Amino acid sequence: MISEKMSVMVKNSSVTRAMFEEGKRLAAIYGKENVYDFSLGNPSVAPPASVKEAVVDIITNEDTTFLHGYMNNSGYEDVREKIADKLNKVHQTSFHSENIIMTVGAAGGLNVILKTLLNPGEEVVVFAPFFGEYRNYADNYDGKLVVISPDKETFLPNLKELEEKLTSSAKAVIINTPNNPTGVVYSEETIKELSKVLEKKQQEFGTSIYLISDEPYRELVYGDVFVPYVTKYYRNTIVGYSYSKSLSLPGERIGYLVIPSEVDEYEEIFAAAGVATRILGFVNAPSMIQRVVASCLDSEVDVSVYNENRELLYNSLTEYGYSCAKPQGAFYLFVKTLEEDDKAFCERAKKYNILVVPGSAFGCPGYCRIAYCVGKSTIEGALPGFRKLYEEYREEPAGRCR
Amino acid sequence: MISEKMSVMVKNSSVTRAMFEEGKRLAAIYGKENVYDFSLGNPSVAPPASVKEAVVDIITNEDTTFLHGYMNNSGYEDVREKIADKLNKVHQTSFHSENIIMTVGAAGGLNVILKTLLNPGEEVVVFAPFFGEYRNYADNYDGKLVVISPDKETFLPNLKELEEKLTSSAKAVIINTPNNPTGVVYSEETIKELSKVLEKKQQEFGTSIYLISDEPYRELVYGDVFVPYVTKYYRNTIVGYSYSKSLSLPGERIGYLVIPSEVDEYEEIFAAAGVATRILGFVNAPSMIQRVVASCLDSEVDVSVYNENRELLYNSLTEYGYSCAKPQGAFYLFVKTLEEDDKAFCERAKKYNILVVPGSAFGCPGYCRIAYCVGKSTIEGALPGFRKLYEEYREEPAGRCR
Repeated sequence: MISEKMSVMVKNSSVTRAMFEEGKRLAAIYGKENVYDFSLGNPSVAPPASVKEAVVDIITNEDTTFLHGYMNNSGYEDVREKIADKLNKVHQTSFHSENIIMTVGAAGGLNVILKTLLNPGEEVVVFAPFFGEYRNYADNYDGKLVVISPDKETFLPNLKELEEKLTSSAKAVIINTPNNPTGVVYSEETIKELSKVLEKKQQEFGTSIYLISDEPYRELVYGDVFVPYVTKYYRNTIVGYSYSKSLSLPGERIGYLVIPSEVDEYEEIFAAAGVATRILGFVNAPSMIQRVVASCLDSEVDVSVYNENRELLYNSLTEYGYSCAKPQGAFYLFVKTLEEDDKAFCERAKKYNILVVPGSAFGCPGYCRIAYCVGKSTIEGALPGFRKLYEEYREEPAGRCR
Repeated sequence: MISEKMSVMVKNSSVTRAMFEEGKRLAAIYGKENVYDFSLGNPSVAPPASVKEAVVDIITNEDTTFLHGYMNNSGYEDVREKIADKLNKVHQTSFHSENIIMTVGAAGGLNVILKTLLNPGEEVVVFAPFFGEYRNYADNYDGKLVVISPDKETFLPNLKELEEKLTSSAKAVIINTPNNPTGVVYSEETIKELSKVLEKKQQEFGTSIYLISDEPYRELVYGDVFVPYVTKYYRNTIVGYSYSKSLSLPGERIGYLVIPSEVDEYEEIFAAAGVATRILGFVNAPSMIQRVVASCLDSEVDVSVYNENRELLYNSLTEYGYSCAKPQGAFYLFVKTLEEDDKAFCERAKKYNILVVPGSAFGCPGYCRIAYCVGKSTIEGALPGFRKLYEEYREEPAGRCR
């Protein structure tokens, strides 16, 4: 009796669910501490202390009817103004409150902007490997997902193929940098080249192609890596942001969209995004936490913890013989699986109580994603298993190890 | 460049927006205290003190990584269990955690369940007058809204017309009791008769017709009014609930769906609703506030304040000559406008700085909705204007006063 669309989606979701159930099953047998679950992007680093302080301060001092009440569907104006100011300070932009819509996380924001933009059949272009939910978000509004195949050397966007595949029906292109699942950060050069392709195609078709930059991992970068602010390079850019990772608040569902004044049809889009926020049932981003994040704009989680995990895992796996690009950001390692069938590989890893996600879930078979937002002991506990798994493949008669 | 669907919705939303802007304009001229805004259903009574205490307690004592982290898309299991227990205690039901999905308010819940159920073209039946957003929620999933015309004597559901209009494409019927905009509460008798019609039609068509009971106003009733728990009368009932009104937390976006084990295809629906929560971009209901409401299940806002407003406004308006049914619940008065054109009436009320919403926004022209979730001074300040407005109409040559 459920809708046909949902039947398909439930079926597709069953892989994740099965993995979750498998984790529980293994934990019941071997003990939770002996199961190495790298399948979820759930931040392991605690929110900064400023979050707790802000909650206490705000609940103590602000009027509760105001604090828990409705506001403009786009969010509290002072919160949006503060966020705009912060962005301007960091990125030398010139946003104001009317460029910001507070959203129920980045996922909520992406749904709002796709609802705003998409007519049935219009195309949403993504670069493999990509966060699998993009497919569902586009489908929610009957958009057509166009997948650009991965550049397995660099995991940077394949711009040649983009140019070939962009049509006059292309309404949006989604990028995600730092990237889930690869951890790759697009350089300024890459963003400029991408912009050039989009500008050219806009002119050729006489259309507007919106570049949606999904940036929940913006602050999670290691070393001196520069993450360009995309609105400065391509006029029709809309940014989706979330505090899920930067403040470790994924459960709170708080983020925002940036809709710069210079995007084509800015006024229509900004007004429609506010309405979309309402009619999709979000109504507005949760109220108290809006005010909390506005008080914590200068805070960040301790990224050094993720960095230590990254170094340990990357160095160990490559030492064992695994092949993967060293991630510059986010908290994922995208590792070549030791046989072409990534699902079979992930299945086999379970033998060592290791749970990782097949690359095919991200449109990129032959790889797996290892989420290292876990305790250090999980990595240390899993390493012997990763080593044995490698040795197992190497010793096979067919010498299957890739 | 925005989607065609959104263009229509933005246009339809412009009435509300215009009213909001008009309120601001009048406030700028006459002072905020001299503008009587009855247009919004934004609770005026503060949340109970237990909410603040729970926030402080929870942020102080719970682990913040857990508190602000992801959980099952359906919500924290212990929270769902507590809510089920509370429902069972109050309504003698037998729910458990697997019947509850925490949602981003009732609006989020309705979207989740409609996404779960609706194939394009399937029908969603509503009884006029109805909360206007139902039209948008159904449209989000390409459902077809079927409107049953109002019974202007009682504002109870017109069951005869329901029986005539139900087809084999009917997937859902939405009721909302206590009702927005009328304040009417459906009696046990009414629910039983409604159930009979639905049972009969299910049998006739060999289909499942889900009765979605949208209940954000359940606790806002005056005197000894009994609000039947609908799952006990009709097997295929799904309840949408929100703490927006009962705890005055509308901005926090927290509520739940009840999907009883006995509904047809329960397992598919429950699983799909969890997936729908994720892919619509809610992901999960905001985390901390889930735990807060679970700590406040025995709390309620002080309904006596609304009751005083109701008495004052109802008694005064009917004394002046206005005609309306006395509401038993919610915080709205649905008043017959003094001319047939309800929009013209509402326009004219602005002369006295009174803002009310035309009944046509609820599919019921010839009436207007007065939201009395306002300070008492707003009502007192507006009464002379309401009186003069009535006199104006009465003295018109055409004697237009209805």
